[in-house]
Amino acid sequence: MKKITFLFLISLFISSCNQQTDKVIDTISLSSEEKIDSTNIKTLFNSALTEGESYEWLRDLTQNIGSRLSGSPEAAKAVVWGERLMKEVGLDSVWLQPVMVPHWVRGEKEVATYTTNGTQKDVPICALGFSIATPKSGILAEVIEVKSLKEAEEMGEQLRGKIVFFNGAFDNTLINTFKAYGGCVGQRYSGARICGQFGAKAVIVRSMTNAIDDYPHTGTMSYGDIPKDQYTPTAAISSRAAEILSADLKKTPNLKFYFKQSCKTLPNAPSFNVVGEIRGSETPENVMVVGGHLDSWDLGEGAHDDGTGIVQSLEVAYLFKKNNIKPKNTLRIVFFMNEENGTRGAKKYAELAKLNKENHIGGLESDAGGHTPRGFSIDANLSNTKLLKSWKKLLSPYGLHDIDKGGSGADIGPLKDDHVTLVGYRPDSQRYFDYHHTSTDTFDKVNKRELELGSASMASIVYLMDKYLYNNTPVKP
Amino acid sequence: MKKITFLFLISLFISSCNQQTDKVIDTISLSSEEKIDSTNIKTLFNSALTEGESYEWLRDLTQNIGSRLSGSPEAAKAVVWGERLMKEVGLDSVWLQPVMVPHWVRGEKEVATYTTNGTQKDVPICALGFSIATPKSGILAEVIEVKSLKEAEEMGEQLRGKIVFFNGAFDNTLINTFKAYGGCVGQRYSGARICGQFGAKAVIVRSMTNAIDDYPHTGTMSYGDIPKDQYTPTAAISSRAAEILSADLKKTPNLKFYFKQSCKTLPNAPSFNVVGEIRGSETPENVMVVGGHLDSWDLGEGAHDDGTGIVQSLEVAYLFKKNNIKPKNTLRIVFFMNEENGTRGAKKYAELAKLNKENHIGGLESDAGGHTPRGFSIDANLSNTKLLKSWKKLLSPYGLHDIDKGGSGADIGPLKDDHVTLVGYRPDSQRYFDYHHTSTDTFDKVNKRELELGSASMASIVYLMDKYLYNNTPVKP
Repeated sequence: MKKITFLFLISLFISSCNQQTDKVIDTISLSSEEKIDSTNIKTLFNSALTEGESYEWLRDLTQNIGSRLSGSPEAAKAVVWGERLMKEVGLDSVWLQPVMVPHWVRGEKEVATYTTNGTQKDVPICALGFSIATPKSGILAEVIEVKSLKEAEEMGEQLRGKIVFFNGAFDNTLINTFKAYGGCVGQRYSGARICGQFGAKAVIVRSMTNAIDDYPHTGTMSYGDIPKDQYTPTAAISSRAAEILSADLKKTPNLKFYFKQSCKTLPNAPSFNVVGEIRGSETPENVMVVGGHLDSWDLGEGAHDDGTGIVQSLEVAYLFKKNNIKPKNTLRIVFFMNEENGTRGAKKYAELAKLNKENHIGGLESDAGGHTPRGFSIDANLSNTKLLKSWKKLLSPYGLHDIDKGGSGADIGPLKDDHVTLVGYRPDSQRYFDYHHTSTDTFDKVNKRELELGSASMASIVYLMDKYLYNNTPVKP
Repeated sequence: MKKITFLFLISLFISSCNQQTDKVIDTISLSSEEKIDSTNIKTLFNSALTEGESYEWLRDLTQNIGSRLSGSPEAAKAVVWGERLMKEVGLDSVWLQPVMVPHWVRGEKEVATYTTNGTQKDVPICALGFSIATPKSGILAEVIEVKSLKEAEEMGEQLRGKIVFFNGAFDNTLINTFKAYGGCVGQRYSGARICGQFGAKAVIVRSMTNAIDDYPHTGTMSYGDIPKDQYTPTAAISSRAAEILSADLKKTPNLKFYFKQSCKTLPNAPSFNVVGEIRGSETPENVMVVGGHLDSWDLGEGAHDDGTGIVQSLEVAYLFKKNNIKPKNTLRIVFFMNEENGTRGAKKYAELAKLNKENHIGGLESDAGGHTPRGFSIDANLSNTKLLKSWKKLLSPYGLHDIDKGGSGADIGPLKDDHVTLVGYRPDSQRYFDYHHTSTDTFDKVNKRELELGSASMASIVYLMDKYLYNNTPVKP
């Protein structure tokens, strides 16, 4: 009796979640074509989860090459790696698209410190991409704290001679962490441009993250078109250091902050997009592009940003080949170069597509991390948006509920045109900004199943786009 | 121009995910009551994400107390901790429910090894809960590999004198990892019972996980009602070790496996469920119970299993109080004892509820980890199931799409009755069995936002259940 009760309780535990996924798809409501689609999608998921290669590819890229900022030797190695891997997967043709990229280097590890109440505090800091260096002896100045670009602009001349400290934090009530990022990242991107005009000595920015921790997050900044003599060194400090500095400033408003960095921008360097394709079986002149970006920031290993997007994109082609699904249109995989600080690869790709009169009918980008799948974001005309949303019933059994209008991605964005259906893959965003642009964006943060589910999600929507956009999109004259 | 293009591309990146969450709820389609509900749910989420306490409570429980197997000194400390915390949160009354629990101890760290081709291989191993020890000198025997209980039963007498090695692996094509667990856990639970009857010398079981790694996963087993002289020592080995052993057995079928463990079952020990409640403002005689389990396995820190469920349950009451939401029915928080190896706390709670003629109208359990929210599983009558499913439009903006019929949980399961609406909280399951019952189930695996989103998800459905089941459920005569 006791045993039976206990087994009953164990089975209660196991019966959990059975409504979430692996639910029997209500095939009665599906048309005969949709039944075929449902079966093919299941095949793609089964294949990704049992014979996927993306996780080992990612291990190789992140651990044997590591971070790969545009212009770096590692970025060059990643290009060779990508070309070799595309050939190994057996794409019909693989080539490199030359592109000149910015070449910024961090130099020596940055140092930051200040003393308050007799205690010296070391501050985790990192230069922002494209920032200039400090003088060799560093910069020492009083700090003025602001929470937004607007507040800095209003302070105007009060910023002169100061280190301006942007401390606007993520709005944690936003469920989608990308929205919180969007509300803050202007400080990082434009802080130095604004403050330089008012004679600020330097700019430090609270790291772009929801977490309170000790890792500074780098990222790109721009001086815009202000004169060079108004350029100021700019860096990110960790979120915890920002909280502590803010508290210390309340007690000691005139404390002096010191930091030193030796970064610089070298002449543009040659690099490449890596491109490979499976030729379409029916209308090869129509192209569907799937990609992520091969470059990464120089901290960490570029795992979630965007190693996962790279290996998932290639796995789309791998899964098609492995399961003998022949795309009607040409399926092109692109490892874009230089998304992080210039998007030169994206621009080059779009420029060449136009020059060569290629007819892109669709694009899919994975550049939001490798976490558990949530859905897709659609940037397309009304009828194609409606078409893609109608696939929810086929995709929701895999946790893909969020299929709605929205942006796609920075690398495929330049292909935007009314007849092109652009899609962004959207995994769960909660952990993304814990790792984004930091030393902690490493392979161990990626879960194998979550990565593979992403590959399969992407392959599934590409399968559907290939099949239905083919009949749906007018060929461009 | 270049600047504008670049800003445009950055904004494309940021515009990602905007369809997933934080979408404007289509309030036109909501009734006036639903608009109030929508506002209150947003308040609960905002509060959890900005002033939640669950993460620090979990840090305290997992890092200052640690693992807390039933009967252990740590489990006793956790009871004191839970009672104190419930009082600090300001529940109207807090009390302990005495319950006798099994008391199994692991003893010394287990050892396992075998030699093949002249190479000695050490095997990560851990005894299963309720297993007997090996002789002090350990057990050395040939190994026979099977993939299921059925296969073992069919082998019958061939098992005599052997170490039976259950190597049935998770079906990784199942999207919901709990289903894969359900398909395998019988080997762990009943392997020794089956094999002991055929004179097997011992049983080793592949760990219950999707991952291939080096961590053995413990868990409960049962000898059922076989005679004591048929009891055999049983243990789990890591999934990687299982793969390697299986390969080695193909080459060397008669290799001898050695292991030693000194676990034992002591007399039952006194322990407690920790119970606290906010008295209902309108019908306090109706009870809504929210809980998780306070005990954990002895490896790791019991973070995802089930520290997260404990702190989320208490945070439901905390969020109600903090936001001045007064439950109409009595809201009772329970930290159940002994879910892992006996569910004695669950049985005691249900027994006392019956004895005291308490009218439970609903229950919610969190015991599936602290990962990002996905939905709820409903075990209720048809009309209440329909009612809860109708709340999808209010809950889906928070990623809670999966609201369907299914199991609830092992601790509230014994309250099942046609008029009681039982609900299981269902976070994403992909990473859960990476940590389940292992040394890696530690605080650092829990993401603060994911935990808080779970608390808010739970508080939201409790808010709705309290408001609508109140009018919907007949009071038991």
